Amino acid sequence: MTLILSNADVENLLTMGDCIESFETAYVALAEGRALTRTRSDCIVPTGRDDALYSLKSMDGVIPELGVGAVRIDSDIVTWPRQGDNVRRVKVPAANGRYVGLVLLFSTETGEPLAIMPDGVMQRMRVGATSGLGAKHLARKDAATIGLLGSGWQAGAQVMAVCAVRTIESIRCFSPTRANREAFAAEMRARIGVPVAPVDSAEDAVRGADIVLCATNAIDNVFFKRWIEPGMHLSAIKPAEIEAQAIRRAERVVIHTADTKPIHVMAAGVTAPDASAGKGWASTEQVDLKQFPTLPDLIAGRVPGRASDHDVTCFVNNLGLGFQFAAAGALVVANAKKRGIGRELPTDWFTQDVHP
Amino acid sequence: MTLILSNADVENLLTMGDCIESFETAYVALAEGRALTRTRSDCIVPTGRDDALYSLKSMDGVIPELGVGAVRIDSDIVTWPRQGDNVRRVKVPAANGRYVGLVLLFSTETGEPLAIMPDGVMQRMRVGATSGLGAKHLARKDAATIGLLGSGWQAGAQVMAVCAVRTIESIRCFSPTRANREAFAAEMRARIGVPVAPVDSAEDAVRGADIVLCATNAIDNVFFKRWIEPGMHLSAIKPAEIEAQAIRRAERVVIHTADTKPIHVMAAGVTAPDASAGKGWASTEQVDLKQFPTLPDLIAGRVPGRASDHDVTCFVNNLGLGFQFAAAGALVVANAKKRGIGRELPTDWFTQDVHP
Repeated sequence: MTLILSNADVENLLTMGDCIESFETAYVALAEGRALTRTRSDCIVPTGRDDALYSLKSMDGVIPELGVGAVRIDSDIVTWPRQGDNVRRVKVPAANGRYVGLVLLFSTETGEPLAIMPDGVMQRMRVGATSGLGAKHLARKDAATIGLLGSGWQAGAQVMAVCAVRTIESIRCFSPTRANREAFAAEMRARIGVPVAPVDSAEDAVRGADIVLCATNAIDNVFFKRWIEPGMHLSAIKPAEIEAQAIRRAERVVIHTADTKPIHVMAAGVTAPDASAGKGWASTEQVDLKQFPTLPDLIAGRVPGRASDHDVTCFVNNLGLGFQFAAAGALVVANAKKRGIGRELPTDWFTQDVHP
Repeated sequence: MTLILSNADVENLLTMGDCIESFETAYVALAEGRALTRTRSDCIVPTGRDDALYSLKSMDGVIPELGVGAVRIDSDIVTWPRQGDNVRRVKVPAANGRYVGLVLLFSTETGEPLAIMPDGVMQRMRVGATSGLGAKHLARKDAATIGLLGSGWQAGAQVMAVCAVRTIESIRCFSPTRANREAFAAEMRARIGVPVAPVDSAEDAVRGADIVLCATNAIDNVFFKRWIEPGMHLSAIKPAEIEAQAIRRAERVVIHTADTKPIHVMAAGVTAPDASAGKGWASTEQVDLKQFPTLPDLIAGRVPGRASDHDVTCFVNNLGLGFQFAAAGALVVANAKKRGIGRELPTDWFTQDVHP
């Protein structure tokens, strides 16, 4: 049978602790060439709407020792609204009020499709788990406070992941809309049992923090060099969130992957604002991320982490990998089978008797 | 609703004539940058079997004017058996006796998943339609005879496609196994109403033919320069089927796409025989296909076709494109809706309420 799972199922089946543990082993396999991942590609074309583009994004990964290959697909209507000084990338729920992202999992032993599920919860968990591993291998062992920039979908997973690898005692959170940060703080407090204080500025959030987590959908800088304090660990889910000078200031910078950008395949005349607008890296100075070692190299022990408690460390979760969906997907499928969760469809619907 | 279609459905819904007509318009859109395609990628890792590898292959394409984006995925256990002097690439039906290849179609207007179906029949039709367009734009207008090398799954579609663009009066077919070529000849005769003669050698098949179609799963040369006659049109579904010297001899060579090879992402220590074994191009001389114009350029009128009835022309269907699955898929979905064919699943199963 091929399982059809929902986001609620994935949320039930995938804990942050398991996800981080599975990723840690899988990243060693990736570093050693036993697991694979294919650089994300975005095919971008005009839509009927002046302010929107259609993006068909895909990425693949295979982890033979987990028996799983994954393809993750996003089929998005994308807009780039301006909010204050910042340009944000915002997807439109144009599919009858809903978004479209799928993960398909296949067996590397038989080839058969094991499961199909939406990518939303897994996406959040894998971004969180990856930043969590960055913090585990780079932040001070005694790091106890988080300064969080952002209060959206990704921010919660970032916090959960860091709480899984360090004993966190307090969190301060800033995001531009007061109601959002207050609601987030209340929800997170209840969820993780750690004090979460909403604050009125980014600077208030990061002052004195041991770990700074950027988890915004801004495509501009949100954290600046002038806010750095010795011993801090900085973490970004998009490179441009952290000012280039702040990245240069860090004693140890690690990026997620050497694939520093997706392969863009664009229709004639199309330019996505990600590449050309905003006050961030696009229009000011940039850091060549390729100079830095990667998380798989760090976890596999090929490069050192922090050298002292005074070092500033920085993890840039620069680009997602299909590999991550294979690692998280293997856990989800194993747990779904064990617990009998998910809709079962005949595998024959997704296989064939002809040699294609 | 999201449609789940079978190969039988696709066979019902997609005629070769419609497919060629749709592709012809879509290739102009591709040439003019209004449609897109992403180079195929193959992630290849070891399996538990010594003689087999696991391959996760994917390709994407988007055609906004048809309102469709496509992702085609193959999840294959692949072996490379030797048959006589030739090495062949053979997939193993390890998914409970079945093969795994899927096409997913998405709306470029809403993003929603329109349909999921196996890729086998569409794969055959799109390879056929593409070679058919090569013949339409390169073969002599009065071409009436076909020499066919191969009698498998692809060979039938090649013949149907050429019969859709030229008035074919007779076909001679060779493949190494007598029973296969005889069964193929009988089946094709019944299907297309044209005499099809099985013959005992490749040379007997191609002698005097106006159009030579190579449709084998050999990864070595099957057609040689010494067999060329003035005015012939040569067509291959894999570059190495035609001897390099024969390609050089042709006055006009057109390839399918400038993406002359897939992106291979290989696990450490893995080498696929495609790249290193056999008597064909891999071990002898090669032709740099990038020097030749592409089918989209030919159809869009950017390069001339044949200059005289004496010219030898050659079409090398060198690499498949996700784009082709978008073009064929748009037809299939439109016809399925019109005729009420396919299983309907709730689109909500494949969409989500969270911003991924």
